[in-house]
Amino acid sequence: MKKISKADLSIKELVELIKVDFVKTDKLIQNQITSEVDRIPELSNHIVGLGGKRLRPILTIACAKMLNIKNNHHITLAAAVELLHTATLLHDDVVDESDFRRGKETSHTLWDNKSSILVGDYLLGKAFQLMVKTGSLQCLETLSNAAAIIAEGEVLQLVAINNINIKKRDYIKIIESKTAALFSSACEVGGIISNSSKEINKSLFSFGKNLGTSFQLIDDALDYSGNSENLGKSTGDDFYDGKITLPVIISFEEANENEKYIWKEIFQKKVRNKKDLSTANNLIEKHKSIEKTMHLANKYGNKAKKDLSLFSDSPIKKGLINLVDFSLARDH
Amino acid sequence: MKKISKADLSIKELVELIKVDFVKTDKLIQNQITSEVDRIPELSNHIVGLGGKRLRPILTIACAKMLNIKNNHHITLAAAVELLHTATLLHDDVVDESDFRRGKETSHTLWDNKSSILVGDYLLGKAFQLMVKTGSLQCLETLSNAAAIIAEGEVLQLVAINNINIKKRDYIKIIESKTAALFSSACEVGGIISNSSKEINKSLFSFGKNLGTSFQLIDDALDYSGNSENLGKSTGDDFYDGKITLPVIISFEEANENEKYIWKEIFQKKVRNKKDLSTANNLIEKHKSIEKTMHLANKYGNKAKKDLSLFSDSPIKKGLINLVDFSLARDH
Repeated sequence: MKKISKADLSIKELVELIKVDFVKTDKLIQNQITSEVDRIPELSNHIVGLGGKRLRPILTIACAKMLNIKNNHHITLAAAVELLHTATLLHDDVVDESDFRRGKETSHTLWDNKSSILVGDYLLGKAFQLMVKTGSLQCLETLSNAAAIIAEGEVLQLVAINNINIKKRDYIKIIESKTAALFSSACEVGGIISNSSKEINKSLFSFGKNLGTSFQLIDDALDYSGNSENLGKSTGDDFYDGKITLPVIISFEEANENEKYIWKEIFQKKVRNKKDLSTANNLIEKHKSIEKTMHLANKYGNKAKKDLSLFSDSPIKKGLINLVDFSLARDH
Repeated sequence: MKKISKADLSIKELVELIKVDFVKTDKLIQNQITSEVDRIPELSNHIVGLGGKRLRPILTIACAKMLNIKNNHHITLAAAVELLHTATLLHDDVVDESDFRRGKETSHTLWDNKSSILVGDYLLGKAFQLMVKTGSLQCLETLSNAAAIIAEGEVLQLVAINNINIKKRDYIKIIESKTAALFSSACEVGGIISNSSKEINKSLFSFGKNLGTSFQLIDDALDYSGNSENLGKSTGDDFYDGKITLPVIISFEEANENEKYIWKEIFQKKVRNKKDLSTANNLIEKHKSIEKTMHLANKYGNKAKKDLSLFSDSPIKKGLINLVDFSLARDH
């Protein structure tokens, strides 16, 4: 059975504080994925129903509520953010050829790649339709930027596959694009739609960026050190996909000649096996690369908390700080 | 060598009238497909460089110029419309598994499906960024509607593959979604951005819809009757892909029991061969299905011309009317 981690509890605490709006967002998402073309709700319900953490819409709602939003546009934006995210997941699963997400079969396995591509496009269109409904060009600006940056980051990751020579700063650029960009816009729109000042919106953007980067680094670490059962996917996914993540980059940078040779050999292979993963894990352990990855994740987490310093104390602010702390302690 | 058809000439005449803005649009598109990630401009330049007719951005510019636009936003919108279209082409080629487009190898053949999916997403993001720059929520509304409707139409087409029982009205719904939706929004934004009245924008939308439907019906007819060399792709593509288009639907509706049996057998097959195409062509000829398809295309073309009746005479209006007439006479 899946353990309930501290991170789960901290998200639950935050959701409790924004419960009414969270439920409304969920209903709005359900409303958007209807269509006369059955394949669309079928496939969308499948991926939406996999029950991700819904972190991004939670951030939008929480940021807006922290700023005492007076309208309901944050709900519309939260739904748009989640639909945009869901669209990228559908396309990611095709690109990564992943058979499982959160322990369940992926849409492109249950239906086909074609449906996943086109339903992803549909959800993207729906996301933009929702943004338009808020009448906020500023929200449309940051979210369309995010959409382009996410795709750019995904292409960058694709061309970097198996490239053991990738530099740390280039890798950080990938995760800032593919993950942090949507976190930052999700937070920023919460500010924009509450008519907040430029300074506040900038802080929220930065908070999201730092939280998102920290979040992705922990994901990277968990792929080598996590518990498969709690992750809902196998550890070693990145490794088998040939994705070079920070634990590997650190180990390679600090490797001696012989170790560098081993790393190169492993990632030149078309297919890596369990024995390769065990070799990789030994090298990662030797150079304490998981600890070093977590150390960097902590640094970004601390930056995220600092970004919140300009807001007055409130239960939601406390919830957001807990979210950073506990997400650093999560095991899935 | 590719023949220059009357339709080419009519597009050229129209382009002559809007030359300066057309060139600016082209430059803007080129500007948008830059990125530090080489794969993005490489792949984008390939598909943009295949040199399609650029009908959609031409329509946006022409409609705005016909209404004496006073700003330059129509250029931004024309580029956005073309980027949106290009994104759908990249995804279509993956979905259709097409190896050739306009006589050249497709991007997913030269690179891979993954790149085509992600670069498509990137171009979609860029398209929305451009729309935001115009500051027009109304343009964003009609174009985000189009994005969702196109994807919905593509899914509808996907689930209708090999379904010989599809009704004419359901088929018309597919082409209204996958093709006509962008034609109509491309025309409408030309009106919106020129501060035109609701009535004018509605007429432009309707003009685009009727022209787009007529255009797609002619495409369907050409896939059975066209000259491969001028088409830049093989005739029979739809047939081999299992796409049931109007010439087949008409032939099936009018078929006797024996013919219905033949049609069913052909489309139940996983792969269709040259002999099957020849059989299909004979049945299509017997029932004059090409002529009947062209007849319907003409009906939509006439509706499109009627939609322009509320505009005063001008060289551009004449150019748009010629475009309808000559596109009905095109051979590719």
